[in-house]
Amino acid sequence: MNQRQGSDPATPIRAVDVIRKKRDGQELSRAEIEYLVQAYTGGEIPDYQASAWLMAVRLRGMTRKETSALTNAMLRSGDVLDLSEFPAKKVDKHSTGGVGDKTSLVLAPLVAAGGLVVPMISGRGLGHTGGTLDKLESIPGFNVNLSVPQFRSVLDACGCAMIGQTSEIAPADRKLYALRDVTATVDSLYLICASIMSKKLAEGVDALVLDVKTGSGAFMKKEEDAAFLAELMVETGEAMGKAMVALITNMDQPLGLCVGNSLEVAEVLDVLRGNGPEDLKELCLELAGWMLYLGGAADTVAQGKLDAEQLIASGKALEKFRQMVALQRGDTRVLDDPRQLPRAKYMQDVTSPKDGYIAAMDCEAVGTACVVLGGGREKKEDAVDPAVGIVLGRKIGDRIAAGEPLCTVHSNSEARAIRATKLLLESYQITDAPGVRRKSLVHRVIRGSKGKDQKENSSGGK
Amino acid sequence: MNQRQGSDPATPIRAVDVIRKKRDGQELSRAEIEYLVQAYTGGEIPDYQASAWLMAVRLRGMTRKETSALTNAMLRSGDVLDLSEFPAKKVDKHSTGGVGDKTSLVLAPLVAAGGLVVPMISGRGLGHTGGTLDKLESIPGFNVNLSVPQFRSVLDACGCAMIGQTSEIAPADRKLYALRDVTATVDSLYLICASIMSKKLAEGVDALVLDVKTGSGAFMKKEEDAAFLAELMVETGEAMGKAMVALITNMDQPLGLCVGNSLEVAEVLDVLRGNGPEDLKELCLELAGWMLYLGGAADTVAQGKLDAEQLIASGKALEKFRQMVALQRGDTRVLDDPRQLPRAKYMQDVTSPKDGYIAAMDCEAVGTACVVLGGGREKKEDAVDPAVGIVLGRKIGDRIAAGEPLCTVHSNSEARAIRATKLLLESYQITDAPGVRRKSLVHRVIRGSKGKDQKENSSGGK
Repeated sequence: MNQRQGSDPATPIRAVDVIRKKRDGQELSRAEIEYLVQAYTGGEIPDYQASAWLMAVRLRGMTRKETSALTNAMLRSGDVLDLSEFPAKKVDKHSTGGVGDKTSLVLAPLVAAGGLVVPMISGRGLGHTGGTLDKLESIPGFNVNLSVPQFRSVLDACGCAMIGQTSEIAPADRKLYALRDVTATVDSLYLICASIMSKKLAEGVDALVLDVKTGSGAFMKKEEDAAFLAELMVETGEAMGKAMVALITNMDQPLGLCVGNSLEVAEVLDVLRGNGPEDLKELCLELAGWMLYLGGAADTVAQGKLDAEQLIASGKALEKFRQMVALQRGDTRVLDDPRQLPRAKYMQDVTSPKDGYIAAMDCEAVGTACVVLGGGREKKEDAVDPAVGIVLGRKIGDRIAAGEPLCTVHSNSEARAIRATKLLLESYQITDAPGVRRKSLVHRVIRGSKGKDQKENSSGGK
Repeated sequence: MNQRQGSDPATPIRAVDVIRKKRDGQELSRAEIEYLVQAYTGGEIPDYQASAWLMAVRLRGMTRKETSALTNAMLRSGDVLDLSEFPAKKVDKHSTGGVGDKTSLVLAPLVAAGGLVVPMISGRGLGHTGGTLDKLESIPGFNVNLSVPQFRSVLDACGCAMIGQTSEIAPADRKLYALRDVTATVDSLYLICASIMSKKLAEGVDALVLDVKTGSGAFMKKEEDAAFLAELMVETGEAMGKAMVALITNMDQPLGLCVGNSLEVAEVLDVLRGNGPEDLKELCLELAGWMLYLGGAADTVAQGKLDAEQLIASGKALEKFRQMVALQRGDTRVLDDPRQLPRAKYMQDVTSPKDGYIAAMDCEAVGTACVVLGGGREKKEDAVDPAVGIVLGRKIGDRIAAGEPLCTVHSNSEARAIRATKLLLESYQITDAPGVRRKSLVHRVIRGSKGKDQKENSSGGK
């Protein structure tokens, strides 16, 4: 059937009718959704009709079938990588964005060292969150803008590659996202699902692990929203034949101790050397365990985690990272001497005004403090300063004495440092009473119906 | 306060924030609504933001205060006529649109003959409904496109004038309406209210009588929607200091017997001569009674109706119509000989297939049959054939024998006549049992809180 046709093949689909149908809360057909995405991407449907439809979706929601059809239509608006030339399973991880979340940089080489292929296409930081590409670019020379043939050849040579979205990948998403941004329709969980999944599935992966953040530093502050989105994405991916899992993870405070691009790369190197902060290590192993398991390289998630630990201990993961950096024209000297990474001019402690215990943090404010320092971007066009950032001295539950450093600000501008310091001071909540309970890092593990009967004995979850 | 400012005078209003607020069901401030209307009309806010906002309004609704602010902002987007040079009260009537609804042509001269000023700015037919301007233009030479000074001089000479919307009146409405039309946001009662009221209040009237149609031939098929819209408009008008009333009237079948431009003008002349079908006469008197009462020319609505009857019986209403037609360059010979109006080539009866009683009519289908004949327009650009139309032989409750004419089709194309005949045949529902109850013409009379304590002893309503 011609996809421009409705149930009556004589009647062409009209945008206004599709908008009306969604406005009235009815389920759109696959053909209607395909028409909308194709005609909008092709410039046949104007922005003003697309935005009315987006608002109707934001307020009326979508069924699972519609979400899957939208994801599929957006995916097929551009190129889908065919990586079938690689005999190993292709697997990736996606995070919904957080503060200090640098797991991708650990996971790509770690899981590739485990024998799988990791074709990772990442984004830049926006708002209070950091972005994988910005972190990678703090390694002098590292090129995230590979062509698809270059991407393939890096994957072929070392099993992992990390690049930015090319213009051929899901152009519908780029056009729709720009429109959502100015029409208050960004925060529809259905649209978020389709946007993420259309880009990730264009990588041609067999399995996808989702890290859905919740808490004060996440886009989804409420766990029920995070869980809803996670289920939606898992079901959408499974409907397309992918092995899927989503971990709902804590973002009430930054992950690890470092926030800021160079600082985070240095922390990644610590983890790849078997050191680094416990929470970051734990989450990397948990996610790697799932990636290795879903990619068929381990029989259980627990086995995958053990394998991942071993790959770090043996130095194989770091070696894989070194290969990838070299292949993507990055300066590998920083791996041996992280002081070669861009460094900020000023370092200043933010000290505690009183004795007590860290009861809570406004994690989004910490991310914003990093943006204020120049380490993130408020608008897409903003340049990022790789050197600046924040190193946490204390995290939730820790004891602190008056005058001790809560964190250290790395800056290239004293004025910016002053603004960031104010935000950071306000972001810490200090209580007199000890015994603050830290939340577990992995709140929940969500699998679709297809995954339910698989053997997955994870130590994470719950 | 600068109207471009929010509650914090340092923060300019941003369209995306206003959209978000409405999306979340919050009440917009007067300043926010004014900004939106002004900036959109001025081309500062693009269509795609306006349409997202329109969809949010369609799905979230508006408060009375917001509706009033929107009406006011749209009204003030253009010129507001100042008719204070006329000592008499200025009064008008607006109908939400129906089939065979030609009351405006009776009311303008009738109420002007009663001593009030009727500055009537009307629209064209759209969809299945007819339009006052199309009807007037079936009078050879009649000019509905007067400039404002010409409009004033006709009003000055005879107390009534009937023209089309000028480009100076409520430009925001024109721009928003065009956008609503293609984004499935036409049928928001709040937006309908603001659209109607902004145009009608731009006429500079003191009082406004609303004829809100409900039934199978109306835009509002459900009476509760009609009543809701009526209340909204009455309250909005009263908030702006106008004397207001809304009559919810029946549109389950065409008003009168004639549908089609020339045919309706001939029927108007019948009414102005004291003849014509009962329902049409009754509604004209009811509306005229209210106009005369609200305009202060009669002490009660009942008195207004009696006065109106007298103005028809004395020939003064017809004489006023003659004056107005002459002043607007129409050929007054048609008043004495309606056969001078454009006449169709073919006349064909649509006969009943069986004996019985008319139980119901699909009134919208009758309107559509007239459009099919060429007597209305599907798109704004369509030309209208003044000669064609339908004359009903039977209406709801009437007895009919097999072979007797249900109605007569006046056409200029046999192919169109065939299509119209099919629609008309299907639009009549014929039952064997007698005793079909006709609904009363005026279902309800709706006044705002301000009107409640006035003396209005109407024979209409309940």
